[in-house]
Amino acid sequence: MIVILKHNPNRDQLESLISWLQDKGITIHTSIGEANTILGLVGDTSKLDIDLISALDIVEDVKRVQEPYKNANRKFHPEDTVVKVGNTQIGGGSLTIMAGPCSVESEEQVVAIAKAVKASGATMLRGGAFKPRTSPYSFQGLGATGLEYLKIARQETGLPIVTELMDLSQLPLFKDVDVIQIGARNMQNFDLLKAVGHQDKPVMIKRGMSATYEEWLMSAEYVMAGGNENVILCERGIRTFESYTRNTLDLACIPVMRRLTHLPIIIDPSHATGKSWLVEPLSMGAVATGADGLQIEVHNDPAHALCDGPQSLKPEDFDPLAKKLLKLHAELQSLGE
Amino acid sequence: MIVILKHNPNRDQLESLISWLQDKGITIHTSIGEANTILGLVGDTSKLDIDLISALDIVEDVKRVQEPYKNANRKFHPEDTVVKVGNTQIGGGSLTIMAGPCSVESEEQVVAIAKAVKASGATMLRGGAFKPRTSPYSFQGLGATGLEYLKIARQETGLPIVTELMDLSQLPLFKDVDVIQIGARNMQNFDLLKAVGHQDKPVMIKRGMSATYEEWLMSAEYVMAGGNENVILCERGIRTFESYTRNTLDLACIPVMRRLTHLPIIIDPSHATGKSWLVEPLSMGAVATGADGLQIEVHNDPAHALCDGPQSLKPEDFDPLAKKLLKLHAELQSLGE
Amino acid sequence: MIVILKHNPNRDQLESLISWLQDKGITIHTSIGEANTILGLVGDTSKLDIDLISALDIVEDVKRVQEPYKNANRKFHPEDTVVKVGNTQIGGGSLTIMAGPCSVESEEQVVAIAKAVKASGATMLRGGAFKPRTSPYSFQGLGATGLEYLKIARQETGLPIVTELMDLSQLPLFKDVDVIQIGARNMQNFDLLKAVGHQDKPVMIKRGMSATYEEWLMSAEYVMAGGNENVILCERGIRTFESYTRNTLDLACIPVMRRLTHLPIIIDPSHATGKSWLVEPLSMGAVATGADGLQIEVHNDPAHALCDGPQSLKPEDFDPLAKKLLKLHAELQSLGE
Amino acid sequence: MIVILKHNPNRDQLESLISWLQDKGITIHTSIGEANTILGLVGDTSKLDIDLISALDIVEDVKRVQEPYKNANRKFHPEDTVVKVGNTQIGGGSLTIMAGPCSVESEEQVVAIAKAVKASGATMLRGGAFKPRTSPYSFQGLGATGLEYLKIARQETGLPIVTELMDLSQLPLFKDVDVIQIGARNMQNFDLLKAVGHQDKPVMIKRGMSATYEEWLMSAEYVMAGGNENVILCERGIRTFESYTRNTLDLACIPVMRRLTHLPIIIDPSHATGKSWLVEPLSMGAVATGADGLQIEVHNDPAHALCDGPQSLKPEDFDPLAKKLLKLHAELQSLGE
Repeated sequence: MIVILKHNPNRDQLESLISWLQDKGITIHTSIGEANTILGLVGDTSKLDIDLISALDIVEDVKRVQEPYKNANRKFHPEDTVVKVGNTQIGGGSLTIMAGPCSVESEEQVVAIAKAVKASGATMLRGGAFKPRTSPYSFQGLGATGLEYLKIARQETGLPIVTELMDLSQLPLFKDVDVIQIGARNMQNFDLLKAVGHQDKPVMIKRGMSATYEEWLMSAEYVMAGGNENVILCERGIRTFESYTRNTLDLACIPVMRRLTHLPIIIDPSHATGKSWLVEPLSMGAVATGADGLQIEVHNDPAHALCDGPQSLKPEDFDPLAKKLLKLHAELQSLGE
Repeated sequence: MIVILKHNPNRDQLESLISWLQDKGITIHTSIGEANTILGLVGDTSKLDIDLISALDIVEDVKRVQEPYKNANRKFHPEDTVVKVGNTQIGGGSLTIMAGPCSVESEEQVVAIAKAVKASGATMLRGGAFKPRTSPYSFQGLGATGLEYLKIARQETGLPIVTELMDLSQLPLFKDVDVIQIGARNMQNFDLLKAVGHQDKPVMIKRGMSATYEEWLMSAEYVMAGGNENVILCERGIRTFESYTRNTLDLACIPVMRRLTHLPIIIDPSHATGKSWLVEPLSMGAVATGADGLQIEVHNDPAHALCDGPQSLKPEDFDPLAKKLLKLHAELQSLGE
Repeated sequence: MIVILKHNPNRDQLESLISWLQDKGITIHTSIGEANTILGLVGDTSKLDIDLISALDIVEDVKRVQEPYKNANRKFHPEDTVVKVGNTQIGGGSLTIMAGPCSVESEEQVVAIAKAVKASGATMLRGGAFKPRTSPYSFQGLGATGLEYLKIARQETGLPIVTELMDLSQLPLFKDVDVIQIGARNMQNFDLLKAVGHQDKPVMIKRGMSATYEEWLMSAEYVMAGGNENVILCERGIRTFESYTRNTLDLACIPVMRRLTHLPIIIDPSHATGKSWLVEPLSMGAVATGADGLQIEVHNDPAHALCDGPQSLKPEDFDPLAKKLLKLHAELQSLGE
Repeated sequence: MIVILKHNPNRDQLESLISWLQDKGITIHTSIGEANTILGLVGDTSKLDIDLISALDIVEDVKRVQEPYKNANRKFHPEDTVVKVGNTQIGGGSLTIMAGPCSVESEEQVVAIAKAVKASGATMLRGGAFKPRTSPYSFQGLGATGLEYLKIARQETGLPIVTELMDLSQLPLFKDVDVIQIGARNMQNFDLLKAVGHQDKPVMIKRGMSATYEEWLMSAEYVMAGGNENVILCERGIRTFESYTRNTLDLACIPVMRRLTHLPIIIDPSHATGKSWLVEPLSMGAVATGADGLQIEVHNDPAHALCDGPQSLKPEDFDPLAKKLLKLHAELQSLGE
């Protein structure tokens, strides 16, 4: 950590800061410049509160040199995390395809879709039982019943299920779910993150609509700090001024996350764009950029889906796409990707 | 609602759409243009799911003419909502000043600050007992104990208290709080919104970091749909590319909210900017723009605050500011604001 | 165009609006709803000024149904535009690779790089002679001399050259350039756009840092309105709150542009990210998403480049990348992309 | 400047960097930490290219401690710049009110508006002769004729005129203009900035739609580096995801600019919001936040303005506003603002 002092800092305050830092086991290197004096703090600065130091009268600015996350940091954990889910895995060179309806509507619907997407090559079933909707007047999901239908679909197909947990009061219902999804709007619901950090089930954290890379990783850190190391990241678009697409999909996050963390990274082009005709090109792009997998919405009747129809593919459109993605993934490995 | 059809829409699908709409009591006005046919839907379109219609093969675009919120909409509720809190009120021409520490640290601290800010003219005490922190390693607040200290401070000063609820499991502890604050990160925690909608206590909703005006009002709508009409809005800055300030304070939201809704609007310049020296000019700006009040961080030792020190004012700096704000507010009323 | 009237509009003003529209050859379909009356305007509404109508006292909102661009619009020009440049082409299924230094520094440098990138598979040479730099104290480019060096490199390699025009006073110097590049900061320099619209040379327009898709296409429309139909679009990242990368590369623009326009689309991952190690994964992603080509910075000594070193690849890193991109492009075509 | 080295940097490269820096007169303070070695560079680092150092293999990150602008920097020029224009001034405690039409349409129009706004208290006349329009099919301004009408209006009222220069080819026509305005879209048209830097006329630089504070000040620096110290800054809203208002007005820029620079700062609420009913509250807010002045659009017939009608006030609405603003400004001074 680097502390930049104001010009001519008060001597007493400076000495008080220095002795306070030394008490915390920090070694201090001082560079006296013409315009500014700079303190280089050496030691375990992760315990220091950057805001507290910034607030001091004699301090102009504080710059962090090390990342504030540890468990999620590749520097301290160089090997890729591979998350085992049922008879499949996420990360480690495989291509995960999570497919299914935005919202579980009926047993027939979700079982039919599960069978279809499995036949096409999907490795996991996604579907929402509890739905975060911006309007209190919109369909809010089937709740516990929806979770039951997902389990029936899993029984019928063998596909592990990933579904969203919206509130920690719902946690007991999620015992039998394979992967717990934390939605973008809950990425900084810290009580929820702590709760799933004490579970032994994989957790997939969607990036908040305006979250930075660091904030996203700090949310992973919350889960990991609780002891749960099976964390998956999922990018679903960030909010920008462009409103033609629902959000702007940030594929650069794939190589960036690869460098900053060891956790696997999944891309959700359906929510990111809100338009089904953009799912294919951006799925192809995500795979070629190096994603560990995709989350794709598939609905057998998108025009009558109870939510998010416009971004869903029909099973007959998903089938050639899934096959194309798997072929591309195989080709890339032979290209040395 | 206006439905723009694709060129040469399939006749059967069009008839099916029209009869489906008519079943829902909607009257349809058709404008056949050279390039597009447009359906004007008249009636209670708030029950129609815009996404569902957009998803139809024959539809190019759907544009909403009416706002999706009703309880929060000034059109259906022309008079200003005035929220009564203890012996004070929010809205209705008064200037609310909520002041206090970001985080409650001790009984002595919060009582001392409460006394100081009351003497300066504050009308409510703010302070966090449960703290949303981006790092799991940062101070997370005193929790239930912090709430007790706030109540002691209220007893000593008579100032009503406003404090943040982070999870619905904490709700029983908030029975004796005067105003429940929903933080920016929880603005779309829909289960939490529903829960506070069934309380009879005022709720202040902070705008999410990347929330649009409409989404913010839809969050108010969630609370009001549950029967709780005492909702207060609080702007605390939105995220932009500018990183010199923590966020960008959007004062235009004041007159915009005045037009779109009847709910009172409070401005939080402390969190918006993250810098204590920006609090005074932006508080003045907020009052002159027409805010119903301010939420300002005050700490007796900002340099050693356990969180958010850099944005806190000392009581001796808050005192002249509060007096200046009250004078400005009085002057503006004589200017006909 | 749809005009939404306020509740109970003044009758005289409404009649005046209607007759004014009819004078312009517009047919009007009126839908009278309970809350609003809506006018559907049919005819050539591209001549109507949307702002002017919005400003009328009786109007609540105006919504455009048709795009404001015509020459650039795929609806009126369904076939892909293929731009011929020297012995190569941009668009039409080929993969264009524009490579070279950010800034031309010497004859030796640019000739050496041109030879290297040609050997690796590049189809065009890029290089800046006039450089837009945010600081007046930074290297501003070699100017006319830089253009001469580029021409020498073209002579030596046969690669057509693309280089940035910053001001219309420089236009006479660009007579012998193959493709004129309009930089992101000049995307809405309308006088410059008009000037290059009267040239018979291809123009590549970089997307402005905060430009919407529509604004970008309107800039293309400016050039095309002058008679120059050889326009190429180039995405180079948009500004968001994320500052880890210089900008956020928006690959969704590829399929979106494919739908909205017939113009070819090039991706510049070097400027978008500002980091050389992100160029390979995002180039792969761009090709798989369907880009017509890439613009990649290559420098023989990035550590001593006079500008933008950190985002440049060395020729020895560019070589395997270019080969990988060309293989991927070939594979995709066999996959039916 | 602080250079953070990668773990275990190559010794030869490090020595080469150190001697290169020493050659440039830089003194280096080294802090060797467990995780990183940090170099503190002391001396005139403004000549160092931060990108060049970042690009070195041994460097992890470079952080600037000092601002890259000098002439515009308050640190090196503590007194407020006061710009003299005709018989009025901008800055130095006065309140400048620039008012007039977005676009000059006729002699009668501009003279009538000039007389009206002068009577209401405006101190300068604004009006566009050359208009940057996003569509090539929109009215582009009267050009040289418009400038003549502005001069007639000045003669009739004594109000100095401020008008936008779009391209340096127009510069000869601007000899007799009082203040040259650089539009938001041209904020980084560096050739234009250099050209006006060699004039002896005040220049007002509008903030680009997605410009940071630092970039804005670097544009001022371009003008000042040419010798022209009479620079005025004008905020006109930045682009965010909120589309209800045209842009988001950032009033925090007022106190931030006051701290970072000595140049006066003007606020344009008309363009920022695009809605005339938002001009009054935000003008009041801007004055109370400490702006040196306002730029407000006034049109005698906004419903038939040839551009930007919806954001224009009528003279009869501007009159009470101007008076209110001047009263507020006077009150604030008595409040010690």
